[in-house]
Amino acid sequence: MNPFAQSREDRVGSLGETALIKRISEWLGAASPDPPAGIGDDCSAVHLPPNKSYLLTTTDPVIYQRHFDSQLEPEQVAIKLLNRNISDIASMGGTPRHATLSHALPHHLSIDWLKRFYIGLSHEACKCNIQVNGGDVTTTKDFLGAFMTLVGYGNERILERKGASVGALIFVTGSLGGSRLKKHSNFEPRLPEGQWLATQVGVSSCIDLSDGIGKDCAAILLDHCNAKIDASRIPVSEDAHALSRSSGRSPLDHAINDGEDYELLFTLEPDQDYDTFVDHWKTRFKTDITQIGIISKRVASHPSVVFSNLEENIEPTGYDPFRTP
Amino acid sequence: MNPFAQSREDRVGSLGETALIKRISEWLGAASPDPPAGIGDDCSAVHLPPNKSYLLTTTDPVIYQRHFDSQLEPEQVAIKLLNRNISDIASMGGTPRHATLSHALPHHLSIDWLKRFYIGLSHEACKCNIQVNGGDVTTTKDFLGAFMTLVGYGNERILERKGASVGALIFVTGSLGGSRLKKHSNFEPRLPEGQWLATQVGVSSCIDLSDGIGKDCAAILLDHCNAKIDASRIPVSEDAHALSRSSGRSPLDHAINDGEDYELLFTLEPDQDYDTFVDHWKTRFKTDITQIGIISKRVASHPSVVFSNLEENIEPTGYDPFRTP
Repeated sequence: MNPFAQSREDRVGSLGETALIKRISEWLGAASPDPPAGIGDDCSAVHLPPNKSYLLTTTDPVIYQRHFDSQLEPEQVAIKLLNRNISDIASMGGTPRHATLSHALPHHLSIDWLKRFYIGLSHEACKCNIQVNGGDVTTTKDFLGAFMTLVGYGNERILERKGASVGALIFVTGSLGGSRLKKHSNFEPRLPEGQWLATQVGVSSCIDLSDGIGKDCAAILLDHCNAKIDASRIPVSEDAHALSRSSGRSPLDHAINDGEDYELLFTLEPDQDYDTFVDHWKTRFKTDITQIGIISKRVASHPSVVFSNLEENIEPTGYDPFRTP
Repeated sequence: MNPFAQSREDRVGSLGETALIKRISEWLGAASPDPPAGIGDDCSAVHLPPNKSYLLTTTDPVIYQRHFDSQLEPEQVAIKLLNRNISDIASMGGTPRHATLSHALPHHLSIDWLKRFYIGLSHEACKCNIQVNGGDVTTTKDFLGAFMTLVGYGNERILERKGASVGALIFVTGSLGGSRLKKHSNFEPRLPEGQWLATQVGVSSCIDLSDGIGKDCAAILLDHCNAKIDASRIPVSEDAHALSRSSGRSPLDHAINDGEDYELLFTLEPDQDYDTFVDHWKTRFKTDITQIGIISKRVASHPSVVFSNLEENIEPTGYDPFRTP
């Protein structure tokens, strides 16, 4: 069968990423378990009997002309690849351990580029106590991409995306926006922060911010919930301000829609004491946290994430790596 | 840095697959553990404490115009992808359990093709008691590839590639050659056979035949060993004979060099009784086994795999998915 479609509506490009993943999950049917074991969370999490621990698995690629270009050094590409995957394990509170890399390499790729990529990967992996256990290499005509699968372990309690009750407070770590200036390839996954959050019973959901706060926050909501976010409380990064000077977009727009922040968004249940929690955080981490919103009861006529104090021209739709422009 | 090289000798295409993987392993250095945990076996195998069991991980892709084309139905592509990975776990005697799929999809890919791919994958996965736990989708300009990572479990004893002593007998399952007629996309991984072999202490090494017997057999040899293969004993498939009629190559040439057989090659230690072993096999499996050679002491002037009774015009170099033609 010819894999390609003539008419626009028959092409996968006509679907958004979220719609496509939903369909894939339906097509897989019985082979696709519910989250957190199956599709729908940052990692898949399956029990490792007889231990009370989890095997966490996530996969993310870096592809030339999409996730990096010739501006980036090969070491940075490798670090970005590893850290994108680590960030998913961080958001579930796990410990990353084993990486597998499937590499699609054009014949005319430079050996020196590849050498620097792998040496850079090795340094970063050793720093994080991660082994690169294996992989595959295949040549292509001109496509360059590295597809990493990262396996880690979670303790008895892992953080899942869904679990926040009505009234739970919504926090983010660090500051947001302007990632393409630097942060997209040069960020520190919130690994110790995620691991500690997983030990706190009052923390009820967590996700890493990769596609922008509007889209990612919608992904944590149970069916009966909305999120209310006060846009004036969103911590806007210096890079978002810097980028704004040339982009014609406001710093807040960058903070909401750029994606690739790799900060954590998490919720604290309403029965928990805000001050005690924040104090505990501050004694452990230099990373800032900011409460930016609250989980509310679902109102069918509202969008799932409702922003207040938002400039009128900002559409908080985030980044969709899939939709055709 | 520009990832591409101008001069031929600076390009990865100037290296063969084996040389490239050796370099990657060196570049990774401390991040790359010894096999079976690291690069060098069909899967990576790491201990799962405190159990005496192994986590097995393998990765193989299917790429359009390399591993499949429009002649193949999407269900067959999915089955080939899954079975290529299962075969690696079979060769170490493990049980496959969790698949993760990173999918590179052109915008103009047909939704119907993709639907049939995933439904086909689901059926085959369910048949094998494998879950598809997650993945990633990314759009591309025109590159279509699916990169699967398959995780499984091994018991206390797994089969590794290296371990055969001088005097060990070399066996293969099934028959070889002509895979591109049908078998490359329609084969049964030797899963129960591999699992049983792993329980036999006299079985000292195992590999699945994907690149041709000359190349794959070389991969099981310890430094002080050669393999001697009697080409007249190699079980030649009917498809190798069929293909020979139009290819201008002999059936034996097809059996030795076509690759994608996905049969097991394994060794039985010299202190084991041949007849008892073969009898035990036959009571369990309908799959044929054939003893085709023996492990011998290394002679530096010999190639690592020495064929006897080979037609003169056959070069037993096998299939290298990497070298530029």
